[in-house]
Amino acid sequence: MRAVVIFESMTGNTERAAGLIATAARDAGAEVALFSIDQIGLKELAEADVVFLALPDSAAAEIAPALVDAGVRVIDLSGAFRLRDAAARARWYPDTHRLPPGVAYGLTERERGAVARAQLVANPGCYPTATLLALAPLAEAGLLVAGTDIIVDAKSGVSGAGKTPSERTHFSEIHGSLAAYGVFSHRHGAEIEQGMGREVTFTPHLVPIDRGILSTIYVRVAPGTTEAALADVYERAYRGATFVRLAGPSLPEIKHVARTNFCDIGWRVDPSGRAVLVSVIDNLLKGASGQAVQNLNVMLGLDERTGLL
Amino acid sequence: MRAVVIFESMTGNTERAAGLIATAARDAGAEVALFSIDQIGLKELAEADVVFLALPDSAAAEIAPALVDAGVRVIDLSGAFRLRDAAARARWYPDTHRLPPGVAYGLTERERGAVARAQLVANPGCYPTATLLALAPLAEAGLLVAGTDIIVDAKSGVSGAGKTPSERTHFSEIHGSLAAYGVFSHRHGAEIEQGMGREVTFTPHLVPIDRGILSTIYVRVAPGTTEAALADVYERAYRGATFVRLAGPSLPEIKHVARTNFCDIGWRVDPSGRAVLVSVIDNLLKGASGQAVQNLNVMLGLDERTGLL
Amino acid sequence: MRAVVIFESMTGNTERAAGLIATAARDAGAEVALFSIDQIGLKELAEADVVFLALPDSAAAEIAPALVDAGVRVIDLSGAFRLRDAAARARWYPDTHRLPPGVAYGLTERERGAVARAQLVANPGCYPTATLLALAPLAEAGLLVAGTDIIVDAKSGVSGAGKTPSERTHFSEIHGSLAAYGVFSHRHGAEIEQGMGREVTFTPHLVPIDRGILSTIYVRVAPGTTEAALADVYERAYRGATFVRLAGPSLPEIKHVARTNFCDIGWRVDPSGRAVLVSVIDNLLKGASGQAVQNLNVMLGLDERTGLL
Amino acid sequence: MRAVVIFESMTGNTERAAGLIATAARDAGAEVALFSIDQIGLKELAEADVVFLALPDSAAAEIAPALVDAGVRVIDLSGAFRLRDAAARARWYPDTHRLPPGVAYGLTERERGAVARAQLVANPGCYPTATLLALAPLAEAGLLVAGTDIIVDAKSGVSGAGKTPSERTHFSEIHGSLAAYGVFSHRHGAEIEQGMGREVTFTPHLVPIDRGILSTIYVRVAPGTTEAALADVYERAYRGATFVRLAGPSLPEIKHVARTNFCDIGWRVDPSGRAVLVSVIDNLLKGASGQAVQNLNVMLGLDERTGLL
Repeated sequence: MRAVVIFESMTGNTERAAGLIATAARDAGAEVALFSIDQIGLKELAEADVVFLALPDSAAAEIAPALVDAGVRVIDLSGAFRLRDAAARARWYPDTHRLPPGVAYGLTERERGAVARAQLVANPGCYPTATLLALAPLAEAGLLVAGTDIIVDAKSGVSGAGKTPSERTHFSEIHGSLAAYGVFSHRHGAEIEQGMGREVTFTPHLVPIDRGILSTIYVRVAPGTTEAALADVYERAYRGATFVRLAGPSLPEIKHVARTNFCDIGWRVDPSGRAVLVSVIDNLLKGASGQAVQNLNVMLGLDERTGLL
Repeated sequence: MRAVVIFESMTGNTERAAGLIATAARDAGAEVALFSIDQIGLKELAEADVVFLALPDSAAAEIAPALVDAGVRVIDLSGAFRLRDAAARARWYPDTHRLPPGVAYGLTERERGAVARAQLVANPGCYPTATLLALAPLAEAGLLVAGTDIIVDAKSGVSGAGKTPSERTHFSEIHGSLAAYGVFSHRHGAEIEQGMGREVTFTPHLVPIDRGILSTIYVRVAPGTTEAALADVYERAYRGATFVRLAGPSLPEIKHVARTNFCDIGWRVDPSGRAVLVSVIDNLLKGASGQAVQNLNVMLGLDERTGLL
Repeated sequence: MRAVVIFESMTGNTERAAGLIATAARDAGAEVALFSIDQIGLKELAEADVVFLALPDSAAAEIAPALVDAGVRVIDLSGAFRLRDAAARARWYPDTHRLPPGVAYGLTERERGAVARAQLVANPGCYPTATLLALAPLAEAGLLVAGTDIIVDAKSGVSGAGKTPSERTHFSEIHGSLAAYGVFSHRHGAEIEQGMGREVTFTPHLVPIDRGILSTIYVRVAPGTTEAALADVYERAYRGATFVRLAGPSLPEIKHVARTNFCDIGWRVDPSGRAVLVSVIDNLLKGASGQAVQNLNVMLGLDERTGLL
Repeated sequence: MRAVVIFESMTGNTERAAGLIATAARDAGAEVALFSIDQIGLKELAEADVVFLALPDSAAAEIAPALVDAGVRVIDLSGAFRLRDAAARARWYPDTHRLPPGVAYGLTERERGAVARAQLVANPGCYPTATLLALAPLAEAGLLVAGTDIIVDAKSGVSGAGKTPSERTHFSEIHGSLAAYGVFSHRHGAEIEQGMGREVTFTPHLVPIDRGILSTIYVRVAPGTTEAALADVYERAYRGATFVRLAGPSLPEIKHVARTNFCDIGWRVDPSGRAVLVSVIDNLLKGASGQAVQNLNVMLGLDERTGLL
């Protein structure tokens, strides 16, 4: 199997992701080649079996449909194909175009079948990965009270902000501080709402750690719903899923998942039906490259864990 | 004016607070003496004009009423006298006793009159200080929609966990990680609910910084309420209040207030009435010793800023 | 092959090392059991092929000779058997006793033959590992000018100070600060001097990172000695040594080796013969458990990298 | 007294320094104006009594002599006028020009008389400040053994690398790592050698803290020289010097001086004459703006501490 990973440039913020994917994909038995976007033409790409795109949204939006047309399977790490709704896509990713056919949303544990068949996998954003893995099973099981707010207060390490130097990512700006950003205006909010099919209030924060996301989620369940009831739902949803671990009331911390592809989920419920969910991932692995490789494994019918443990 | 600061022990976690208070109170013109609790008797204390207690709850609960009886004014940094309701106090501070007469809750900007007259000032907790300064004016102005949830997602630096060494505060435990704790069970939740007169969902988190608290608060206001309307409310509430600064939609960060007595408040509102408030303080100053000195200034009729700028 | 890892207690500062060893030794094909010292008797231990001791010096000093007498091979992570000279041992490890026969100093790359035959391997200290791998080849090649000072200025992350909570390892003490300690009085100084056979000035520092050591070493070589001459010496010394990587004049940084068993060495020389060497390791791996597993591999005739890449 | 502070640009890395100077100089009673270099002409500057230059070397080299010619006193924070020797200046500051007359090297505690009379004060570099305050008194007292090496191993927080975003100052590059840089090639090495009048080996390191420098210095004194003898020398050298504090054998740490204008110096000596000196400063205060204000105070005959305590 021949895989190609395309990233922006040797100094771009996607080089790290590209390297991680290449290593894992090789472990998975693929013959892997790495190219920056200006080094390779469409014709050579068409000879690959799978192409990973670690590119800016607009570049991915341009190249991916052509690859799909050429019969190549694509795993795209950009945001270009994550939103199904054309209006939402036009608002949040104005530089991107139409969706090609055969797109799957690559939240592996929830879309295994679609990923296995997909021509193009839109690898999810880091915040939506952490958040939807905790929220979606509860919604699906009908546990969330209609008409109540869903609040997602998410905290991310700095690698989530990219490797391109900026005033915002200068050590002295981050060290010893903490800030919210993108209130009501972060594109991952739309991605979470798509996954939930309803309004979600999403606020990301930047914290002085290198890697990791912790998402604290506030929902309402019916009064009297127990923590055990949530445990049941999660156990059913994630039976056999190696990379989702259920921590229950002993809430997970970022250090439990740093440098791994795991998503750990914990929850607390009070008698009146207030529930607090805590979900943690490593944004560079389960939130990006790791999940991309997991999707590769599913697409190829390999053991999902290949190259990831 | 003679002030005495009493702290637990030379190695205790309140020594830092005691030192900060002593320095500031001296700047405010007081003759200040520092004692650990085992070094001084009630009789000597009774000669002071004001006594600051930087003690564990149970020790403060025992000594403060006697001082009040002896005519000494007390500023208590413990939690022993913060909750007015006897049942709440019994639940969250089981080692403490009755409230003496003349107790004021020392959230300075909101209780100036009561503090000026008080015999005993219960200095607020750090989380309630950051949270109530942002929330209370909106509640008072009737802006919060009845029956909707108030969610407080708070993040604190490690000095908030005390200086006593523990596994939890070991550098290697904190560095590179992030965790929620005390879900539905932190005593500051009760203090915030008292200040609001209604249920509040409060979740604190520990982040790898030394000092500072950022409180992200989610509320519902009537659809169509503008950010300008909130600005009006805050400006009226904090006219002339040096230590509350209004950041509006450019949300404040911990670095803006670290090592100061300021509380910076920002807010965003969307057309449907969802509002996100962000409030930041230095937990060791506005959240503890700084506010204690501010209360001293109010009690003595001094300029509130004395020793604090 | 049956291996046993013995550590101090479930909460002790050696638990982390024990876990790392067990994982790697299992990868190396050993059947591994973990015990805290109060859970196991000498008789059961005698049935193991190899015993790893992750214990305080005095406990290791007591138990190791008995194991050797019983024919068990021992890899000791304490300092009890590192110093060969009885007077030095009496000074720096006063609680320890005689050396059993068949002790090898487990600086793998420099003692492979001795480790392969050893009954007891004294796993080196973290600072000596980083320092001697850079210094010893130059001394052996006769490059260091006699009678000149050797200065070792070493910087360590906090995990080197153990996991037991103390005032010194509290997050707020470490964060934002930097300190030298143990000047002229650190036991690793004696271990480095033993390795060099001459006086070395060694000063460790504590820096606010979790793991990693960077050792900056100042020596004098003959005027005119080139950087290429040092490269020759190192290349000969470490031919085929997977875990020593030569960085030459592009000096290595801690992030290059964090969470690996590598030691990266760089060097700069000026025309007058001043040389600066920089050596980095992860103190928890090459500086402790990783090198212990590497020694296990050598003792058993396995590929040295088993369980470590 | 009218002072003007000129900095590079609103986003430049000298803005922080300019702000600190302005605040302190106002506290010192000066009427202070702040300008970026493109906002002000030479003619307006000539009306000031004192001008602080917080500019790149080449800009300072151009503007300072003209100001001196116009009779304005100048405190220059760049490196342009620190080196007296023309050859050294040509090598390390190739963009700069001739020295105007009346230049003093502004290491306040050692050059008070020259600073008081100076027309232009070259404010020292951060590393030389920490290093020379510890080394120079020993040299002057004849304590350093001739012909032995002086080794300076210095560690700096990230603010020393400037506020301009770069790959090197990205949070993810610095966090959890540690690196040496500028071996044999840092301009501050030449400045230290000028201060000592002999060769000094100087190696700076970048550590993951925001502010602060710790300089560990290795010298040889005559065998038998005591720590008390060094104490005598330092006490004589710094009698009445508020901002140099002598820690003796209890070595100072960065947290003791962070956010202050202090330089704390400690020392250890062994019987054979090896001495280790440790000197700490805040690079943004005593190592930059703080010392600039201290020099202003000396130039104007004010109490040296004005605006700094």
